[in-house]
Amino acid sequence: MKNVKIGIIQMRVVEDKKENIRRAGDYIKEVTKNGADIAVLPEMFNCPYDTENFPKYAEKEGGETYTSLSKLADENNIYLVAGSVPEEDMGRVYNTSFVFDRSGNKIGKHRKMHLFDIDVEGGQYFKESDTLSPGEELNVFDTEFGKFGLAICYDFRFPEVGRIFAQKGAKAIIVPAAFNMTTGPAHWEIMFRSRALDNQVYTIGVAPARDEDSNYISYANSMVVSPWGNIIERMDEKEGYRIVDINFDCIQKVRQELPLLKHRRTDIYSLDLIVK
Amino acid sequence: MKNVKIGIIQMRVVEDKKENIRRAGDYIKEVTKNGADIAVLPEMFNCPYDTENFPKYAEKEGGETYTSLSKLADENNIYLVAGSVPEEDMGRVYNTSFVFDRSGNKIGKHRKMHLFDIDVEGGQYFKESDTLSPGEELNVFDTEFGKFGLAICYDFRFPEVGRIFAQKGAKAIIVPAAFNMTTGPAHWEIMFRSRALDNQVYTIGVAPARDEDSNYISYANSMVVSPWGNIIERMDEKEGYRIVDINFDCIQKVRQELPLLKHRRTDIYSLDLIVK
Repeated sequence: MKNVKIGIIQMRVVEDKKENIRRAGDYIKEVTKNGADIAVLPEMFNCPYDTENFPKYAEKEGGETYTSLSKLADENNIYLVAGSVPEEDMGRVYNTSFVFDRSGNKIGKHRKMHLFDIDVEGGQYFKESDTLSPGEELNVFDTEFGKFGLAICYDFRFPEVGRIFAQKGAKAIIVPAAFNMTTGPAHWEIMFRSRALDNQVYTIGVAPARDEDSNYISYANSMVVSPWGNIIERMDEKEGYRIVDINFDCIQKVRQELPLLKHRRTDIYSLDLIVK
Repeated sequence: MKNVKIGIIQMRVVEDKKENIRRAGDYIKEVTKNGADIAVLPEMFNCPYDTENFPKYAEKEGGETYTSLSKLADENNIYLVAGSVPEEDMGRVYNTSFVFDRSGNKIGKHRKMHLFDIDVEGGQYFKESDTLSPGEELNVFDTEFGKFGLAICYDFRFPEVGRIFAQKGAKAIIVPAAFNMTTGPAHWEIMFRSRALDNQVYTIGVAPARDEDSNYISYANSMVVSPWGNIIERMDEKEGYRIVDINFDCIQKVRQELPLLKHRRTDIYSLDLIVK
């Protein structure tokens, strides 16, 4: 099977929403030119990460950001995991990731389902639940290359999420995210490496570039990890993009050598989505 | 709450079973003298790790090794997680860990439930299932300090295992283990750190010392990790022991600052033991 080229876009997020969309567009063109099959934007790429901003920047599905991104996917003939944006629906605001195929059709949508509320002594305080509502679904999306899991940042803290994606046949898990300067150095790498390793999938974390002047300082360090748990690509804190080759044949090899998924004792324990 | 002192015993395993028991006894006395509340031995501490050896070294529960270890716990007035031994029962052989309280009473027993079968190209080949049968239960044991999870080596590869222990109220997970020179450098540290971090518990991995002349070369690197994912203690490859202080108050603090367990979406997914 041929390699899949992932364009990870660690863009800086500014106050001006239109400017963020314009710059996302520039990067999408750039990674397309460099051969990317799938472009991935960071969490809240059109809105500085701050609970007060989420309702102000929020748009309905089909709004300005959505339409622009769908068009960009189509124009560039590229799959686009459009990071995440504040989405308004029925008076509620969600942290939502939309996915478009090469023709700009929506093929995936995920609303962050674990809201990030943290209060570390001498470290980070942040409460997403002050203004956001949680999503209620966990889904994979399908492409010509295979299935991908899609989670947003704090969702990926929960081992259940990675495992459910693997059980649903995901070969890679894409995570628009924004760890901070407390949790980033402590947990970012372990999270992406352990989820990759435990589920024998690729993991792809894409964060905004670090902006020391913002209220919430992103750790950045966008990262791609192999199904064996090795870091294939790790950016630093600066703005930029990378094209990273992944190959799903590698997954089959790793799963043959060390059959972790096969060896699960599903006769003893079960992890399932609850049917409502 | 006072600290709990864990005596981790990274002993070398030799051919002579009696000699292994005698040396385990010496180490248990030594860690007791140095204030340990709980002594932990490595996986297969009385039997060189080799599928052919397991049936030869196997004893019934209550056999020579069991009786000796129970007596050592009593004599030293110490909790003893007696690593693991090959256990024979109804014609089958298990990789079993027994736990004794300060009076030598059995308070825990775990049979390795995920058997380690691996075949890495240019790396490690090993098939436990050639001679071993798997256990069917996952339990915590209780002490004056609180509850502990108990798994053996490959069991801990499965995120379900760590999570179930946390759900059952374990504050620390003890894992007699023996990673090899392929999986050790690649995965040992990530496994102990991610399970600790994800479940906000202490993790304690105790391995045999490295013996370059053995068939299966142990990575060693016995390790204790905090509920924040920090390595508190990491041994090298040599024989020896360490006394490591852990404090369960730390768990409450971490879980208050970053409430991962509380934030699980148990209305969306569930991980449960299957009732038979």
